[in-house]
Amino acid sequence: MIQTPYLLFLGDAPDQLAAKVAQGIKDWRPDNAVGQFRMAGCGADVKLQDMTLQEGLDAGAKTLVVGVANRGGVISAAWKEVLVQALQMGYDIASGLHNLLRDEKELMAAARVNGRTLFDVRIPSVAYPIANGKKRTGKRCLAIGTDCSVGKMYTGLAMDIEMQKRGMKSTFRPTGQTGILITGGGVPLDAVIADFMAGAVEYLTPDNDADHWDHIEGQGSLFHVSYSGVTMALIHGGQPDALILAHEPTRTHMRGLPEYDLPSLEALRDMALPIARIANPACQVVGISVNTQHLSEEEALSYMAEVEKRMGLPTVDTFRQGAARRVDALDAI
Amino acid sequence: MIQTPYLLFLGDAPDQLAAKVAQGIKDWRPDNAVGQFRMAGCGADVKLQDMTLQEGLDAGAKTLVVGVANRGGVISAAWKEVLVQALQMGYDIASGLHNLLRDEKELMAAARVNGRTLFDVRIPSVAYPIANGKKRTGKRCLAIGTDCSVGKMYTGLAMDIEMQKRGMKSTFRPTGQTGILITGGGVPLDAVIADFMAGAVEYLTPDNDADHWDHIEGQGSLFHVSYSGVTMALIHGGQPDALILAHEPTRTHMRGLPEYDLPSLEALRDMALPIARIANPACQVVGISVNTQHLSEEEALSYMAEVEKRMGLPTVDTFRQGAARRVDALDAI
Repeated sequence: MIQTPYLLFLGDAPDQLAAKVAQGIKDWRPDNAVGQFRMAGCGADVKLQDMTLQEGLDAGAKTLVVGVANRGGVISAAWKEVLVQALQMGYDIASGLHNLLRDEKELMAAARVNGRTLFDVRIPSVAYPIANGKKRTGKRCLAIGTDCSVGKMYTGLAMDIEMQKRGMKSTFRPTGQTGILITGGGVPLDAVIADFMAGAVEYLTPDNDADHWDHIEGQGSLFHVSYSGVTMALIHGGQPDALILAHEPTRTHMRGLPEYDLPSLEALRDMALPIARIANPACQVVGISVNTQHLSEEEALSYMAEVEKRMGLPTVDTFRQGAARRVDALDAI
Repeated sequence: MIQTPYLLFLGDAPDQLAAKVAQGIKDWRPDNAVGQFRMAGCGADVKLQDMTLQEGLDAGAKTLVVGVANRGGVISAAWKEVLVQALQMGYDIASGLHNLLRDEKELMAAARVNGRTLFDVRIPSVAYPIANGKKRTGKRCLAIGTDCSVGKMYTGLAMDIEMQKRGMKSTFRPTGQTGILITGGGVPLDAVIADFMAGAVEYLTPDNDADHWDHIEGQGSLFHVSYSGVTMALIHGGQPDALILAHEPTRTHMRGLPEYDLPSLEALRDMALPIARIANPACQVVGISVNTQHLSEEEALSYMAEVEKRMGLPTVDTFRQGAARRVDALDAI
C-alpha cells in the first residue's frame, strides 16, 4: 500500500486535462491529499492548497504522487530535480506514468540513499497466484461495459461512496493505475501475466464479512477484441454477485476499433450473465450506468427512461443522478 | 525462430513420461530431430539414434533441445556440464523448463563467449502489439475445450499434418512451450502481459493466402475460471473461421477445480459462438474432437456416435480415427 496522505505533484502540466489523476484523488479521496505542488508554468489547478515540499511534510504528507501526465514520454530534468529533493526530504513517490520511476538512475539512487520507496503503480509488485475459483465470503459488484472507457471506474467509486454514507460496509477495489493512486492500493490488471490475471482479482477481493460489498473496478469489455481477455479474468476472478452494465450512447464504434460496432445492452447482458454464472451461479444484472456527458439534460433523461423501460433495470447517469438507485438495488440482494 | 534440426537432450530422465516434449518432437516433427542424447541412468527413450554431441553436430544439428522435465526445480550440475559443452561446440540451446537457462550464470557466460543463443520458450521474446482487430486474409481454425488439457494441441497438429498430406496450405501455430519446441517458433501465450494477449495471437497468425489454414493451438477453456481470459484472447486475437470443440468425457470436474463441473458440449458451443462472431461473424463450429483414452474402443465408438447424432457435427478421436473427417469439414468452408 502507498502511504497516505499525499502531496499531489502537478508539475508543469499544460492544462487541466493532464492532471486527471490528481483531479480523481481530489474528487474521490479528498482526505488522501494535503495539498498540491505546482511548478512555474503549471496550467492545472485541482483547487487544493498550493504547498512547497516542506509545507506538505508539515501538513503530514508521506507520499508525493505524480498526479499528472508527462509530455513526450520523458521525465524532464526539471521534474527530476523536484522528485530527488522530495526523496531527500523523506517522501516516498508514487506514479502511474508509462516511464517508470525505477528506470531513472537519479531517482533510484536518491531513494536508496534515503531509504524511500518508489511506487510505479503500472507494474505489479506482487507474485499473484493462479486462481483457485473457490467461493469467497462477502459480496462483489462489477461494472462491465459495452466498450472501454465508458465510466466503469466512476460508477464503482460512486457506489462505494454512497454505501459509506449509508453506513454500509464497502470497499472500492482498483484494477487500473488511476484507481490505485486514488485509493493507495490495487492490482494493475492490464500489466499482469496472462496465467495470473484471475488469481490477481481473487487476491484483490478476498473473503470478507457477509454484508460487505467489494466494488471491483472494471476494465475493457467482453466485446472489445483487444482487451476482452482482461474483462473475462475480472468476471471469473471476481465471481461477482452483481453486474452493472455501463454504456456511452453516442459512440459510433468501439474505442480504437473503427471496424467494430458497439453491442446493444441486451447483447452485453446475454453474453455476460452465462459467463459470470460459471463462477457464481447467483450472479444478477442489477442496474445500468449510462455516461450521458455528450447528451443534453433532456436527451439524457429521455434516453435513460427508454432504456429503463426496455431493460427493466434501474438506469442512471451517476454524474447527473448519483448512485443511490443502484445501491438500493444491491442492498436488495 | 529456433534453428532446426535438433539434437534432443533427454538427460537422466527418470521415465518416459518426463520426456514428453522430446516425444512430441519425435511424433510430430521427426525431420526436426537428428537423434537423442542420453546420460547415464536415463529411463526415457524416444527411439531416435543415440548420439554424442559431436555426432549430433556431424548429423547437422544446430540446437540442443531440452526435451525433458527436470527434477526438483533445479538444473543439475551434471546437466550444466553437458549444456556448457554443447554451447562451446556451437549448439544453441532451447528449453521450456520453468527454471530459465538465462538464470544460470555458467550457461549465460558460455553462450556469450561462444556467440550462441539460449531460448527459454516459456518467456516471450517479442514486444507484442495491442490487437487492432482488423480482418486478416487466410483462414484460421481454433480448438476450444470444455476443460484444459483435453487434447487441443494434438488436434491442431493432426489437422495440420493431414492438410499437408493432401497438399493443402496449412501451418500449426503454437501457443505453449511444447508446441513451440516441436515446431521451432510460436507465442508462449500464458506468459504474455494481459494487455498484449490478443495482439500476440494476431502477430502469430498474420495475413496469408486465401486458401491457407492456420491451426491455432488452443489454451485453457472459457469455462475454466483460472485461465478463461487466455482462451478469450485466443478467440478474439485469432478471429477463427472454424472452431473445433474438444472434450474428455470421463473428467469428473474441471482440472484443478474440484468445485466446478464440466460444461456440456452444447453449453460450450452456445457460449463460444457469439464470442467468436464478435471478431469473425462468419465463424462456425465444424467438428468435435474427443479424447477417449480412458474408454474402451467399444465405449468410445458408442459415445462418439451418440455425440455426433446429438450435435450434428463430425465427432472423432484423432488418436483412434485421424483428423480426416475434420479436415473434410474445414475444406468445405
